[in-house]
Amino acid sequence: MTERPPTPFATRPGGRSARVQQAVHRAVRDLEAAEGRAGLTVPAIAAAAGVTPSTVYRRWGDLATLLADVAVERLRPDGPPADHGGLRADLAAWAEQFTEELATPAGRRYLRDAVGGADPDDTPGAATTPSTTAAHRCSDHAAAQLTAIGVRAAGRGEAVPSVESLLDTVVAPLVYRLLFRPDGLTPAYAHALVEAALRDHP
Amino acid sequence: MTERPPTPFATRPGGRSARVQQAVHRAVRDLEAAEGRAGLTVPAIAAAAGVTPSTVYRRWGDLATLLADVAVERLRPDGPPADHGGLRADLAAWAEQFTEELATPAGRRYLRDAVGGADPDDTPGAATTPSTTAAHRCSDHAAAQLTAIGVRAAGRGEAVPSVESLLDTVVAPLVYRLLFRPDGLTPAYAHALVEAALRDHP
Repeated sequence: MTERPPTPFATRPGGRSARVQQAVHRAVRDLEAAEGRAGLTVPAIAAAAGVTPSTVYRRWGDLATLLADVAVERLRPDGPPADHGGLRADLAAWAEQFTEELATPAGRRYLRDAVGGADPDDTPGAATTPSTTAAHRCSDHAAAQLTAIGVRAAGRGEAVPSVESLLDTVVAPLVYRLLFRPDGLTPAYAHALVEAALRDHP
Repeated sequence: MTERPPTPFATRPGGRSARVQQAVHRAVRDLEAAEGRAGLTVPAIAAAAGVTPSTVYRRWGDLATLLADVAVERLRPDGPPADHGGLRADLAAWAEQFTEELATPAGRRYLRDAVGGADPDDTPGAATTPSTTAAHRCSDHAAAQLTAIGVRAAGRGEAVPSVESLLDTVVAPLVYRLLFRPDGLTPAYAHALVEAALRDHP
């Protein structure tokens, strides 16, 4: 058996790896709440988590990648999307909640953090692959929610757009505006995106 | 006349402010080419530009905001979009070129840098406003190109979707995938987005 380099994604629940991850994530959240972003340095985080800075560097590589990892956990949906009895209503409610949660200073900060983590382009040959970046895992959370909504609707016999198409027509415009031009992100805007997405699936 | 705080956007061409900006931007590009991202520290950049680190901090606030500013300059289109004689062809060519240029390690890096700059949410009351962030200026570059294409098409008598709708249907999916799930970003994908965007404008 060959030794694998530790990554944020190779954790055994309950093992030391998982305990370190929990302690470091908690330290980031506590320090940020107490001192704001300026308090987030690797030495301060390591001290608060009771580990050495080199443990943090070995595992996450740099502060930006640790913050990306924490952001993705915070952006993880805490349950299946609400069931409103139909595809259109489910998607509208989901898009509205997504917008409400992310169109806040904290929500936009987590999105920016998620994008700022290590990318395989930066470190060719590193443990990070395109599908394990924090950004990709963040997108996978949204895709999983849309999949759940779609599976439920298909079970009711409704015609359902593909998840990839819903990412393009609903998630992408919301995230693009959250990151690049956050004015005008209203529930009405989110609903209009859902209407456009369903135009070919009446 | 009241004193204005210096910002990256309040530059008089040819003035000291513009010369400092040019020298610092050039230093970032040179250092990155010579030493990679690891060489990009404020002291090293300041030394290479012949200014003091405090000049850099006063003007940009932090390294991330300087890198965002440099990234937006690099992402600035170097001319009006090519004229292929019709809206559909112009948009398809533009979307294809946008994808080609940004779906590279450097292009994706600049996009991530642009998103990583100062945001008014982080520093309430600071000089940065929602519409002067690096991310917003980056989006404005795309909007200006789409506006030029639209004005040209309207002049030919073609029906033209609004720039806001083209941002949602063409730019947002491309940028979302570049940042979050960069697999499958092909010219065919870009063309399909343009076809979908024009479905109501045949």
